[in-house]
Amino acid sequence: MTLQAKPLRLSTTQPDFEALFQQRLHWSADTDAQIEQRVAEILQEVQHEGDAAVLRLTERFDGLSAPTMQALELAQDELQAAFEHLPEAQREALQQAATRIRTYHEAQKKASGQGWSYRDADGSLLGQKVTPLDRVGIYVPGGKAAYPSSVLMNAIPAQVAGVGEIIMVVPTPGGERNPLVLAAAYVAGVSRAFTIGGAQAVAALAYGTQSVPKVDKITGPGNAYVASAKKRVFGLVGIDMIAGPSEILVLADGTTPADWVAMDLFSQAEHDELAQSILLSPDAAYLDAVQQAIDRLLPEQPRAAIIAKSLNGRGALIHTRDMAQACEIANRIAPEHLEVSSSDPHKWEPLLRHAGAIFLGAYTSESLGDYCAGPNHVLPTSGTARFSSPLGVMDFQKRSSIIEVSESGAQQLGRIAHVLAEGEGLHAHGQAALLRLRR
Amino acid sequence: MTLQAKPLRLSTTQPDFEALFQQRLHWSADTDAQIEQRVAEILQEVQHEGDAAVLRLTERFDGLSAPTMQALELAQDELQAAFEHLPEAQREALQQAATRIRTYHEAQKKASGQGWSYRDADGSLLGQKVTPLDRVGIYVPGGKAAYPSSVLMNAIPAQVAGVGEIIMVVPTPGGERNPLVLAAAYVAGVSRAFTIGGAQAVAALAYGTQSVPKVDKITGPGNAYVASAKKRVFGLVGIDMIAGPSEILVLADGTTPADWVAMDLFSQAEHDELAQSILLSPDAAYLDAVQQAIDRLLPEQPRAAIIAKSLNGRGALIHTRDMAQACEIANRIAPEHLEVSSSDPHKWEPLLRHAGAIFLGAYTSESLGDYCAGPNHVLPTSGTARFSSPLGVMDFQKRSSIIEVSESGAQQLGRIAHVLAEGEGLHAHGQAALLRLRR
Repeated sequence: MTLQAKPLRLSTTQPDFEALFQQRLHWSADTDAQIEQRVAEILQEVQHEGDAAVLRLTERFDGLSAPTMQALELAQDELQAAFEHLPEAQREALQQAATRIRTYHEAQKKASGQGWSYRDADGSLLGQKVTPLDRVGIYVPGGKAAYPSSVLMNAIPAQVAGVGEIIMVVPTPGGERNPLVLAAAYVAGVSRAFTIGGAQAVAALAYGTQSVPKVDKITGPGNAYVASAKKRVFGLVGIDMIAGPSEILVLADGTTPADWVAMDLFSQAEHDELAQSILLSPDAAYLDAVQQAIDRLLPEQPRAAIIAKSLNGRGALIHTRDMAQACEIANRIAPEHLEVSSSDPHKWEPLLRHAGAIFLGAYTSESLGDYCAGPNHVLPTSGTARFSSPLGVMDFQKRSSIIEVSESGAQQLGRIAHVLAEGEGLHAHGQAALLRLRR
Repeated sequence: MTLQAKPLRLSTTQPDFEALFQQRLHWSADTDAQIEQRVAEILQEVQHEGDAAVLRLTERFDGLSAPTMQALELAQDELQAAFEHLPEAQREALQQAATRIRTYHEAQKKASGQGWSYRDADGSLLGQKVTPLDRVGIYVPGGKAAYPSSVLMNAIPAQVAGVGEIIMVVPTPGGERNPLVLAAAYVAGVSRAFTIGGAQAVAALAYGTQSVPKVDKITGPGNAYVASAKKRVFGLVGIDMIAGPSEILVLADGTTPADWVAMDLFSQAEHDELAQSILLSPDAAYLDAVQQAIDRLLPEQPRAAIIAKSLNGRGALIHTRDMAQACEIANRIAPEHLEVSSSDPHKWEPLLRHAGAIFLGAYTSESLGDYCAGPNHVLPTSGTARFSSPLGVMDFQKRSSIIEVSESGAQQLGRIAHVLAEGEGLHAHGQAALLRLRR
């Protein structure tokens, strides 16, 4: 039987559009109670036994036996050697990607990650100081989904922010190491790296063990165990968002070659069967052309089976009234990746309110953003772009308010604070303000 | 028996300092399994039954019976009337505080909350766009800890960020409304307000009901049920940090009147018995003087019993080698509020890396910051200032990456992306990049 990929074909004018559209979008982040229970146990074991528990669990889950945690640490020269033994094309690609990612995040730091202050009429100083986190942990998945690009995307913003120490953990099931991942750690400036993974690695970073230093924040993607562990240690340490399946939404006015768009849909769908690829266009003939391109290009894809499952189960080609309606629908979806494949993308960009990353124009394939355009590829999924943002420098900084009230400012502010404090029944608050008034 | 408040007296030179210091700091955020279970049930009830569940639970927990949710909504003219019926001093204090908070957050938005972009050598556009959240929910505690200042501190940054709709929930046990809270909602520009609270209010905001609109983010403090509910809906909606007990750390060089510092310690301690007040000074005689001031001032405090419990159980007066050592200890504590009560606070400020808010100089009592200096009083507690920040405008905005790759940029980036994509085994990613290369 020939493999077929038929994304659901919809039109916004069909009476059952809303129901079918909602159904297609539906994805449940419901957690598995058994996983939660198991993760809670793993966290406890590591919290109480430290290295011994990590070693035991690494042997059990990764089939990797080591006498001590030292044996599970990758030395800097191992990372460097991995880089140096790469084919030249990969070495260069890694370095060029790293440079562009660094440039972007440096611009971000300059634009949004700086302290500021002002003095008011009374001479009081008000502002905010920005400081890097001391130490962060970066979780890098191992096994089939080993992404060196994720190492760059997590470690470089931390480094640009000025984080003192970046600790990477990456499982190496059966001891198999991915040279590109190790090389990326070298290029990105990771401080220390341990070949551990799963909930036990998250626990080691959150609580610290005899060998793994306790970090202030943990970022990076992982499987359901890793996600559950991160959610559980949230509060003790900071975490980034818990990611759902990856998604792309393409808004197309019909001017981009259909092959290009079909391949963009594939490049999302090939991630996994739950990944979601949706195309919106006011041009029905264009949707047909993209479907034909899908039919033609699918057989030559090494990951055709995954692509087909993803497109059949979660994909959609939606005919909209016009581009403005496509923008409205995009805002409802709040997609992780949003391509505006139009000859006039700047006409539509201002209408787009919710998206992780917006790719403008036919030449901006999502894959360029995934690897090397510069912006971060760690983006909010599953509609969370409604309230959250790409990973960035600010995620590795924190802000402290700075307040210096002048003597004369204290006279004015003290009276206000006293009235409000008494209104809240907090007498000492009011007294602390009154004591600073001139007699 | 006379009430006494004796914070633990320590010196960094005593041999058991480290152990006693750690003991005093210890606070467990462990969640109560029974509360978690009950909250999970409440969330489910509201998710499935909507208004009916909220009405039933409000009657059960707040003793407030209403025929419909409409009866639990506060109309704008009720908020306005509450404001207009306040004594003039309170009206003015609220407005002046609101103005200063707004000014500070507008400066914050201008400094850190704006979009930016640049073009690289190939003419590709890279940047970030900043947009406000559409709708947020603000939880305001009711009953004994009803703080109108919290309404200002949560709603004003949201308003400055440009949030379209701000929904306030505030429980009114037995139907008792706090006029200052209602007035603050009016001054801060709250869009809609419901007299509901607890986990059921969090659920209503997170899932939406027939009457309560679903929001994108929920901020604001609450009891253990509210905290557990917020943690549980995190991911579906955004949340702010889960707050622990409030803390103040005072670094004093001995130049501030001892009464002032004693009152600052009280103003933290009066919040609740778990609140923590710590004073560090290299001047042992000054620590004695503050203890004497505590003894003298305690009896006249309306909340003396709470203050005494807090200081006896969690307070400390610590003699340090010098101010530099006091700064080091401050960084280890990463306090919510950090007063630098020194004649030369700018000498020490650069040494302070981790704190929610830093109050410089003798005139800057924490209480001025709590109410009206301008910066936000929602601050990271329990050492989380190591990785998190005061509530601010950025918490009510989100960022979207903007990428527009030029045709010439696609030639260069396409080759890099192709190499890295093939290295990750993601063929379609590589093809999407290659298709954009000139033939």
